[in-house]
Amino acid sequence: MTDTSTNMRLKLPITCFILEIILIILFGVVVVYDHDTDSKLSNEHGNDSHKHADYENDFYYRYPSFQDVHVMIFIGFGFLMTFLQRYGFSSVGFNFLIAAFSLQWATLMQGFLHGLHGGKIHIGVESMINADFCTGSVLISFGAVLGKTSPVQLLVMAIFEVTLFAVNEFILLSILGTRDAGGSMTIHTFGAYFGLMVTRILYRPNLDKSKHKNCSVYHSDLFAMIGTIYLWMFWPSFNSAITEHGDPQHRTAMNTYYSLAACTLSTYGMSALTAHDGKLDMVHIQNAALAGGVAAGTAGEMMLTPFGSMIVGFLAGIISVLGYKYLSPILEEKLRIQDTCGVHNLHGMPGVLGAIVGAVTASVATKDVYGHGLEKVFPDVASGERNANYQGGIQALSLAITLGMALLGGLIVGFILKLPMFGAPPDTICFEDSIYWEVPGEEHHEEQMTAVMTEESEKLNA
Amino acid sequence: MTDTSTNMRLKLPITCFILEIILIILFGVVVVYDHDTDSKLSNEHGNDSHKHADYENDFYYRYPSFQDVHVMIFIGFGFLMTFLQRYGFSSVGFNFLIAAFSLQWATLMQGFLHGLHGGKIHIGVESMINADFCTGSVLISFGAVLGKTSPVQLLVMAIFEVTLFAVNEFILLSILGTRDAGGSMTIHTFGAYFGLMVTRILYRPNLDKSKHKNCSVYHSDLFAMIGTIYLWMFWPSFNSAITEHGDPQHRTAMNTYYSLAACTLSTYGMSALTAHDGKLDMVHIQNAALAGGVAAGTAGEMMLTPFGSMIVGFLAGIISVLGYKYLSPILEEKLRIQDTCGVHNLHGMPGVLGAIVGAVTASVATKDVYGHGLEKVFPDVASGERNANYQGGIQALSLAITLGMALLGGLIVGFILKLPMFGAPPDTICFEDSIYWEVPGEEHHEEQMTAVMTEESEKLNA
Amino acid sequence: MTDTSTNMRLKLPITCFILEIILIILFGVVVVYDHDTDSKLSNEHGNDSHKHADYENDFYYRYPSFQDVHVMIFIGFGFLMTFLQRYGFSSVGFNFLIAAFSLQWATLMQGFLHGLHGGKIHIGVESMINADFCTGSVLISFGAVLGKTSPVQLLVMAIFEVTLFAVNEFILLSILGTRDAGGSMTIHTFGAYFGLMVTRILYRPNLDKSKHKNCSVYHSDLFAMIGTIYLWMFWPSFNSAITEHGDPQHRTAMNTYYSLAACTLSTYGMSALTAHDGKLDMVHIQNAALAGGVAAGTAGEMMLTPFGSMIVGFLAGIISVLGYKYLSPILEEKLRIQDTCGVHNLHGMPGVLGAIVGAVTASVATKDVYGHGLEKVFPDVASGERNANYQGGIQALSLAITLGMALLGGLIVGFILKLPMFGAPPDTICFEDSIYWEVPGEEHHEEQMTAVMTEESEKLNA
Repeated sequence: MTDTSTNMRLKLPITCFILEIILIILFGVVVVYDHDTDSKLSNEHGNDSHKHADYENDFYYRYPSFQDVHVMIFIGFGFLMTFLQRYGFSSVGFNFLIAAFSLQWATLMQGFLHGLHGGKIHIGVESMINADFCTGSVLISFGAVLGKTSPVQLLVMAIFEVTLFAVNEFILLSILGTRDAGGSMTIHTFGAYFGLMVTRILYRPNLDKSKHKNCSVYHSDLFAMIGTIYLWMFWPSFNSAITEHGDPQHRTAMNTYYSLAACTLSTYGMSALTAHDGKLDMVHIQNAALAGGVAAGTAGEMMLTPFGSMIVGFLAGIISVLGYKYLSPILEEKLRIQDTCGVHNLHGMPGVLGAIVGAVTASVATKDVYGHGLEKVFPDVASGERNANYQGGIQALSLAITLGMALLGGLIVGFILKLPMFGAPPDTICFEDSIYWEVPGEEHHEEQMTAVMTEESEKLNA
Repeated sequence: MTDTSTNMRLKLPITCFILEIILIILFGVVVVYDHDTDSKLSNEHGNDSHKHADYENDFYYRYPSFQDVHVMIFIGFGFLMTFLQRYGFSSVGFNFLIAAFSLQWATLMQGFLHGLHGGKIHIGVESMINADFCTGSVLISFGAVLGKTSPVQLLVMAIFEVTLFAVNEFILLSILGTRDAGGSMTIHTFGAYFGLMVTRILYRPNLDKSKHKNCSVYHSDLFAMIGTIYLWMFWPSFNSAITEHGDPQHRTAMNTYYSLAACTLSTYGMSALTAHDGKLDMVHIQNAALAGGVAAGTAGEMMLTPFGSMIVGFLAGIISVLGYKYLSPILEEKLRIQDTCGVHNLHGMPGVLGAIVGAVTASVATKDVYGHGLEKVFPDVASGERNANYQGGIQALSLAITLGMALLGGLIVGFILKLPMFGAPPDTICFEDSIYWEVPGEEHHEEQMTAVMTEESEKLNA
Repeated sequence: MTDTSTNMRLKLPITCFILEIILIILFGVVVVYDHDTDSKLSNEHGNDSHKHADYENDFYYRYPSFQDVHVMIFIGFGFLMTFLQRYGFSSVGFNFLIAAFSLQWATLMQGFLHGLHGGKIHIGVESMINADFCTGSVLISFGAVLGKTSPVQLLVMAIFEVTLFAVNEFILLSILGTRDAGGSMTIHTFGAYFGLMVTRILYRPNLDKSKHKNCSVYHSDLFAMIGTIYLWMFWPSFNSAITEHGDPQHRTAMNTYYSLAACTLSTYGMSALTAHDGKLDMVHIQNAALAGGVAAGTAGEMMLTPFGSMIVGFLAGIISVLGYKYLSPILEEKLRIQDTCGVHNLHGMPGVLGAIVGAVTASVATKDVYGHGLEKVFPDVASGERNANYQGGIQALSLAITLGMALLGGLIVGFILKLPMFGAPPDTICFEDSIYWEVPGEEHHEEQMTAVMTEESEKLNA
């Protein structure tokens, strides 16, 4: 299985080293600690001779949320994709590699676009969360192309996707004043449609040669459930990680919690309903039960109410299972979109749903309902700069822009990834770790095999 | 294996959809955000023109604990039960389903009984933790019937158990003024004896037909250890999650930490001692090492001291291993209690021990030892309403009430679950995922099998 | 496989019970709650009639970090070592046992040396973190001897290692005023060289008899990745767990985060580069990607800058992979050091690198860069007691002392562990769970085997 074109001996080290050296140089030139991280700035008295108390350091407001997000990115996404029988090393391992790269690159790209202070990027726990968020988007796209790309292709994809993500995020959050704390649009919709377009461009007509590897085994499904459950549990932290301190963070976590709970019940119901023998399908449970978190990503910080959150989650679960069952096969056959993890069903459609729910919820926001808290959620509406309807319109427009950016970006990046030098696997060795990894034998079972064979041979000789 | 009676195609969707729709309607009618979650209430100035600072939002005191509890409920309980060789999908998956349902239902039941404000239930991070706690009780009962029930039966059990849990909790905490922060009584004793009674009523005389499935394999034991270790690590968060802010939360976490550490050593010692060849038994390690957390559930917030905590943990580990080794077989043979996970040894006896320790510790509480902190732990004693001895008596009475409620509730619910329409598995297909799940093959090994067989055939032909 | 000398039926219970009873007695005599944990002390007004607010309780500053550290100790170390094909029970299980013992013993040893107040040891969340840190050191040494020791040997090793750890830590932190918040020296260098010396003394010339067990299988590598990813994610919490409140904690977490990210890229690059076919090696990914956390252990709290952190992490990854590839085989052949997990590459060399980076960073610290925050990081320099160069020299001296203590301690303890009564496994049954554990069959596969064999037999008969 050693093949010159897919041999990573030079390709991968060169890519990793060049990228990391560029990152280090850029960090050295433009990145500095922010007010809560810098020893000097944190400990100096301001003009009002009032020093910030330690417990007001943003670290204590956000670090637990950051760690939950971090777990989602590295364990959640990583293990969710181990469902393939012989792609566990790559799922966790490439997830690990591209996430470690993307979070550094995202710090720079997001910093350039909305964190420059006197030519310097200021970083702290909030920028760490934002970098992890951007990374999440890349990992969603990874799910669409899972099993069909080399690690070098994935790094190249990450370079471009992170950049485009930051541009799209800048347009939405900084220019348009869109609210999208949990990233239904910026993270999920963007990541999903970007990845779908990339996998469309990378369409492999002969992928059925690796078909027998494109499925799970019993234990790989259990490993995947580790990913699923962590994503499910920590989604409330994800959606609330960068909302304003106090009630918005509290409310967002709670809305997401109820959305997910409702989504889980509709997912189980739909999974049994759509199977002719009523048996639950692990693919649905592993994925669709999470759609409630995606769909609460925009409106989660708003006064959606638990009632509203549960309706959103309930619908998201139904849509997602239906997508896996009926839409994915159509996308593959008719549109030639080979979406390995079904990111369209988990991130695409629920992301769009979340954007729409966000637009509607924003458009009905009133001072009556939000009180003085309105400025925490809709500062432009609170200040009288725009009215709620206008905010709702901006939210809807943002969805359209995100879809456009994602599809166009995916189109271009897809063609870049087609360049032959990145070492993509042949159609016959997709969904297979051994092309890029030293894979150990199944020693234990081989021993049993040997025992069987020896016994048989003895019988033959007898 | 498709059988009309166990086919979930209609049963499960109908149950899930009806339940979720009822939940959504009830949430819409009675549930509102509390003062720390609501945008308007959080941001208004009180009469004393003093606004609550963001860092005083209960979210920052309790959300990290909540997330640890959440991990225990979904990963801890879920994976602990994957020890069965072919019941991993159901263990994690049904755990997920009934927990997602129970936490919603518990929010309502607990809210009706002790959270009504002007006809509305106020929710926030504390109610989320309480809902997870109640869910834990249901999952303990699930452990007793593991492998022998359909998902519909489990949901029906959860409906009733959550309701009874809330009633029992209301009697203890609100009427009697019992202290039980970590739920030795309300969660563990209640959940265990309820589940034991249910499994007694559901007794299957011919369960030995599935006997060969009622055990572990090497990898399933490792998956189960994920559950064990998470439960063990986060138990300090569990017991301290809803204690008063400040020293009680700090102290409870620390007491539990030492109780668990001591319990681990006695568990390992007892496991080796009770095996004729001195070999450690995974069942003991996976379960008995956790008994120290259960047993510190009531007294953990009190001035139990690390010394006291360690004695409690040490005893809990011994009792629990002895229970697995000697008592469980007797319960099965003589009392016909088929307790799949041995919840009597992990939650039942250590829960009773915890209740007794709590009663004794409460009865010796003095102002001398607790200082002004007495009102945080025993408000009724601090206010002079009752003396410590009386509090101790109330604690003991609470244990008796809990046992009564659990056994009576389990009796009634057991008979309800016997109704034939819930799709229970036949005796021959217990402890088996494939009755309710699409189960993938062991592709990889099958390939090896094919290789072996081909080779053998070639030899035959030669 | 039952053998008198390795039979744990009496050895293990006696060890566990005696140790735990001694611990309980000592805790009873000398350990009391600290100011933030004690009910009376926490709630009394000081002389300035100013009561500590609840949110200033150290619990809220450190408990989330503590839980992350706890996860690293029990899940991180435990699962990282499950990479061996038939040593998963022991890896997780012995890790669990010796960690539960060590954290109790460490509380006492560390308390005696730097926590005595009027003859009593005061404990709270900070002492819990410190105890977990000390435990980490023991687990590193466990990695060096993995698969070759009995649980009793491990407990005996822990008794001595914890004691020596506390002495070394006392010399460094309390006498010399060394800064080592994340323990590059006290934890990693100490644990690694101690373990390497122990495994040297326990050298087994005939270990190749168990050689076929000293490697991984596909699923065991995935279990190990659970450990790796948790260690990687939570290392920022580890290094920042006991730094001063506010900016040092924030900065340390961030420096470590970037060091690890850079380390991951250099690890992947080096792993592919050093393989003749360019295939990634799981051993490198599982271990070397973590070296960045080790190497940021001393300087993490300093004004290392993200730029500096990334350089450190980048180098650590390179050194670590080179160590696994080229140095470990030499150490085994020439120096007879059988280092099962390669702790020299993950903790030894990166720990030394971290110590050097810390010494250099300390020696260039100025008031200009640190401002008033200097006293939080270098109190002796801020107070004018010593200058930065002197602090740097002290840091370098501390590395030398740590190496000396570790090697000497390991030498002595190695000989103690050679005593025959501890039940060490024979050379033929190393890296094998079944010597100390009841191991279940691979029921499922055996069934398949039976099927194959039956079919074959039928063919033979036909």
